[in-house]
Amino acid sequence: MFEARLPQADVWKKVIDAIKELVQEATIDCSDTGISLQAMDSAHVSLVSLLMRSDGFETFRCDRNMSLGLNITSAAKILRCAGSTDSITLKAGDKADTITFLFDSLDQEKVSEFELKLMDLDVDHLGIPETDYKCVIRMPASELQRICRDLGQIGDSVVITVAKDGVGFSSTGDLGSGKVKLSPSANADKPEESISIEMSESLTMTYSLHYFNIFTKAAPLSSQVILSLTADVPAVVEFPIEDLGHIRYYLAPKIEDDEA
Amino acid sequence: MFEARLPQADVWKKVIDAIKELVQEATIDCSDTGISLQAMDSAHVSLVSLLMRSDGFETFRCDRNMSLGLNITSAAKILRCAGSTDSITLKAGDKADTITFLFDSLDQEKVSEFELKLMDLDVDHLGIPETDYKCVIRMPASELQRICRDLGQIGDSVVITVAKDGVGFSSTGDLGSGKVKLSPSANADKPEESISIEMSESLTMTYSLHYFNIFTKAAPLSSQVILSLTADVPAVVEFPIEDLGHIRYYLAPKIEDDEA
Amino acid sequence: MFEARLPQADVWKKVIDAIKELVQEATIDCSDTGISLQAMDSAHVSLVSLLMRSDGFETFRCDRNMSLGLNITSAAKILRCAGSTDSITLKAGDKADTITFLFDSLDQEKVSEFELKLMDLDVDHLGIPETDYKCVIRMPASELQRICRDLGQIGDSVVITVAKDGVGFSSTGDLGSGKVKLSPSANADKPEESISIEMSESLTMTYSLHYFNIFTKAAPLSSQVILSLTADVPAVVEFPIEDLGHIRYYLAPKIEDDEA
Repeated sequence: MFEARLPQADVWKKVIDAIKELVQEATIDCSDTGISLQAMDSAHVSLVSLLMRSDGFETFRCDRNMSLGLNITSAAKILRCAGSTDSITLKAGDKADTITFLFDSLDQEKVSEFELKLMDLDVDHLGIPETDYKCVIRMPASELQRICRDLGQIGDSVVITVAKDGVGFSSTGDLGSGKVKLSPSANADKPEESISIEMSESLTMTYSLHYFNIFTKAAPLSSQVILSLTADVPAVVEFPIEDLGHIRYYLAPKIEDDEA
Repeated sequence: MFEARLPQADVWKKVIDAIKELVQEATIDCSDTGISLQAMDSAHVSLVSLLMRSDGFETFRCDRNMSLGLNITSAAKILRCAGSTDSITLKAGDKADTITFLFDSLDQEKVSEFELKLMDLDVDHLGIPETDYKCVIRMPASELQRICRDLGQIGDSVVITVAKDGVGFSSTGDLGSGKVKLSPSANADKPEESISIEMSESLTMTYSLHYFNIFTKAAPLSSQVILSLTADVPAVVEFPIEDLGHIRYYLAPKIEDDEA
Repeated sequence: MFEARLPQADVWKKVIDAIKELVQEATIDCSDTGISLQAMDSAHVSLVSLLMRSDGFETFRCDRNMSLGLNITSAAKILRCAGSTDSITLKAGDKADTITFLFDSLDQEKVSEFELKLMDLDVDHLGIPETDYKCVIRMPASELQRICRDLGQIGDSVVITVAKDGVGFSSTGDLGSGKVKLSPSANADKPEESISIEMSESLTMTYSLHYFNIFTKAAPLSSQVILSLTADVPAVVEFPIEDLGHIRYYLAPKIEDDEA
């Protein structure tokens, strides 16, 4: 038996919304340490990895390891039925063929229970090698979302340039070109607005804006995003989920622009 | 001559918006007791009935009974031209071939006058038999709207189950199933949020969610909705219009699910 | 070299948005007195004329007269990348083939630079004869926008009638007719809500609502709009741009309705 409760249904709503643009079906792995999910997009270009630790839940019980095959699109539909202040409990029996979403309103006058049919999905567990990234950038998640959206008006790729004095995002297309430069800044009053750069060497790499624009759908989950970059190694775009874990996206740089 | 004035053009806007999804043309009947309208949707499955009593208007004059055939879609377009704080006067001369919508702004600097051509429509007056309903549920109109919208993600029908301790709405479809349960609650401070159930026997009936989703377009008109249900008899979904009357929708239960 | 800075990127955003519905390509003329633009719509029915005086800019430098051919649609895309509180600098070198849009955030942590390719455009400079208009109406820009949008529900043309006691806008179509009348009013506390009519003779003229609805896209630029009308001469719809100049639209009356 699996049962996990969070006081905010909103968290699950944002998690599933952050995944559903990339993958339509995926397997949730439940164990006594928590919930994880790993999936590649249908083009097998990028990877999404979710971790929600059991100790971050209000209550969490998982008697034995379970793999639940979810239709992510359907799960998103069901989560849209949660009220903005509802709590949420996910439940599945052993050998269950459905997962239950239970929404409770604060005053308990309204209780909603949705059952989603589970699917049998092929699962590839991909080993993600530990990497010691050369550049780690922390910045407001909404700012990265805004920059990727803006540069998407200009071109298909974003060139990220990291130096001690700042990080640059640029794109070129038929109408011309665009370049956004952020400088490091500490904001003691509003730490969520800080921009920090840790680096052992400077770097210029090119990535698909299409995928960055999908990844930044996760921005509502986190105040800050962490970009971890190393030349010729997949970038990691991490959105921390407060008290619970994170959602991470992996994307290899574009080869043709390698020399840039 | 017919002339009826309300201080809030908004009321007419909401009334016509509540009708226009169901019927595109309908006849307004005017008499010295007020305004009424009765029409079936084009599929002849449901019925809408409007009543606005003359004593609820700021001024009301109707010298002799008149039937005004309206294009509801056009009337909705004209009502969109009213300002949010405008007052509204409807006018029609005897044997008129137009109805006039007069909008006055509070400061009288702007006066708008729209004439809508009337239509000759066949009128069936349907007798609605008085029924002593077994279950009468009062609940927030916006809550019913929300529930029908949510269950519309799941299936085509809603099963309504009424018992002393609560009313349940459920639906089943390809992705799984959903069930929402509301418990009776009195809220002295916010009576519009109360949920009450009066019943002489418990009941389980199935209705088309498509129609319920059309009916609940009337939710902006009323804080509370009144659901009157009896087995094998059309349900009534009533939205009271403060000081004026009501808009009521009638819909027969689905036969095939009768045994549910 | 040309360089012009404004503390509010928003002004340029609104200016370009006001032009882009009418013309997709246009030439900006820069001189030491300021910036001007003149263009006809593709149907050669109406004319838009922009003036931004150099002394209204925070800094302005134009060493020699330049004509910059802009793709207005692309410029609008780039301006959407400006933050709501960003300042904006436009720059072009002599004989440049690009124009640079530079956006600075208040705190200087984010600097964005977009380069838009310039185009070679045929330029017709149209002489606009000075006219002594018989009727000049000042009214809230948003009110004119609202009236044109509302009457657009009814018909294709607007008949404007000016008299000492008020200005009327009316339209007729298949569903019926609509007429909006505004009375002069002075509002000392809120001068932007005032309506004034200066006239030497009364007037009734008919114009295309389609074009008026395009012109009033400029309403966000100005609190007041100035309508200058004379029989059988193009109307001028002017939106003042505070401290800088104006955007003006010229449109000939409809001949067929001349006798109205």
